[in-house]
Amino acid sequence: MTSSLKAILFDIDDTLYSTTEFAEQARRNAISAMIRLGLKIDLEDAMRELREVITEFSANYDRHYDKLLRRLPPEARAGVNSALLVAAGVVAYHETKFKMLKPFPDAGRAIELLATKTDLTLGILTEGLEIKQAEKIVRLALTPHLHSHAIFISDQIGISKPNPKLYRYALSRLGLLPEEVMYVGDNPLKDIVPAHEVGMITVRSRRAGKYRDLESPVKPDYEITSFDELILILTRDFQIVLEAE
Amino acid sequence: MTSSLKAILFDIDDTLYSTTEFAEQARRNAISAMIRLGLKIDLEDAMRELREVITEFSANYDRHYDKLLRRLPPEARAGVNSALLVAAGVVAYHETKFKMLKPFPDAGRAIELLATKTDLTLGILTEGLEIKQAEKIVRLALTPHLHSHAIFISDQIGISKPNPKLYRYALSRLGLLPEEVMYVGDNPLKDIVPAHEVGMITVRSRRAGKYRDLESPVKPDYEITSFDELILILTRDFQIVLEAE
Repeated sequence: MTSSLKAILFDIDDTLYSTTEFAEQARRNAISAMIRLGLKIDLEDAMRELREVITEFSANYDRHYDKLLRRLPPEARAGVNSALLVAAGVVAYHETKFKMLKPFPDAGRAIELLATKTDLTLGILTEGLEIKQAEKIVRLALTPHLHSHAIFISDQIGISKPNPKLYRYALSRLGLLPEEVMYVGDNPLKDIVPAHEVGMITVRSRRAGKYRDLESPVKPDYEITSFDELILILTRDFQIVLEAE
Repeated sequence: MTSSLKAILFDIDDTLYSTTEFAEQARRNAISAMIRLGLKIDLEDAMRELREVITEFSANYDRHYDKLLRRLPPEARAGVNSALLVAAGVVAYHETKFKMLKPFPDAGRAIELLATKTDLTLGILTEGLEIKQAEKIVRLALTPHLHSHAIFISDQIGISKPNPKLYRYALSRLGLLPEEVMYVGDNPLKDIVPAHEVGMITVRSRRAGKYRDLESPVKPDYEITSFDELILILTRDFQIVLEAE
């Protein structure tokens, strides 16, 4: 019950938008496009194979569809130019991605509200490849509401979640005390545990994603299922006033 | 004046769509997006710098905006996250690219007509990175009208323009004689000279692009400024009948 809150940092994936849902749909559309171009494989078989590729080569590897093709029996791609097949998959994946990369409506609304009506520093603390995470921030159209000096991407910094050093690095760059910073994320182990360990105010979002039902080793300060609740918490417990213009 | 024409292969860039115009516009939009995000540089200065990057690192290098940022004085990007700046540029570049990647209307129409009304094998013979050229073919939405076994991308084959071996490779894979194959391209040195050397029927497209006014060392069999003229040539000189359905 403090009023010294100065900054809120957000996780991106499954916190600001539905990564899990988007990735599944984008991959499905990619394989469907490859099948339309002549790849001879059952959609569900190909999805299973693709999931194996992603597990083996990591979600951040950028040649999933290339690898997928190489794993399939030659007869599956007989007579079709393999570069075209990969391109058809990649194009369909990207088109889905760009269409679906929108913040949860309440998240977009809340961030805009906080940016325009309060003095809070709003930023991002995210894990992943520099260019991929930066592209998500741009495509989520949140840059006008975020503070550029409060954007922390693990790959850019050289420290990754769940290392609490990443959270301490953010505090030091912001020049703020842990109790002045709130962290909002969906992953209890990678978001809540380290943010809690450095002393930030922790908010666990349990709306979506694969960690929704995972038990957390530490109790977050708050749990929310929508950003409307976050606004409620901020006005109730942190004396954040959403000034009239 | 033969009637033994069996296949037509097309160059992509500045033959099927306006690469030159598209690239200029996409790059301009990219830099404008970076300026909107806080990059402090004059648009024309940045365009000049970007052209230098492209000359030095080749058009196929995929980190132009990253390199551009590194070359600029630190004060130009002070206070703005560099990954965000690069992402803003890349996103704007891609959005322009995807919007502009459409065949010249008469080219799209002619290829569809030839695909549906004749028995000609229609394909591509292009120079460039495998995935980039394949993505162009997919985004130009020509795959339903092209024959997958007639798509030749230099990077995929390991032989590049203007080596006539690339054209001989295509003939051998198609199992056709040179006089049975027509090649349509815009670059006299890379398209017309080697296609002519191996004995293909050559069509120079002088509609667009940086080679329009370049003198050709060999005289192409035909010169066109639109694909309507190509259809005319095919029906007049090659007894190609555009059958009614």
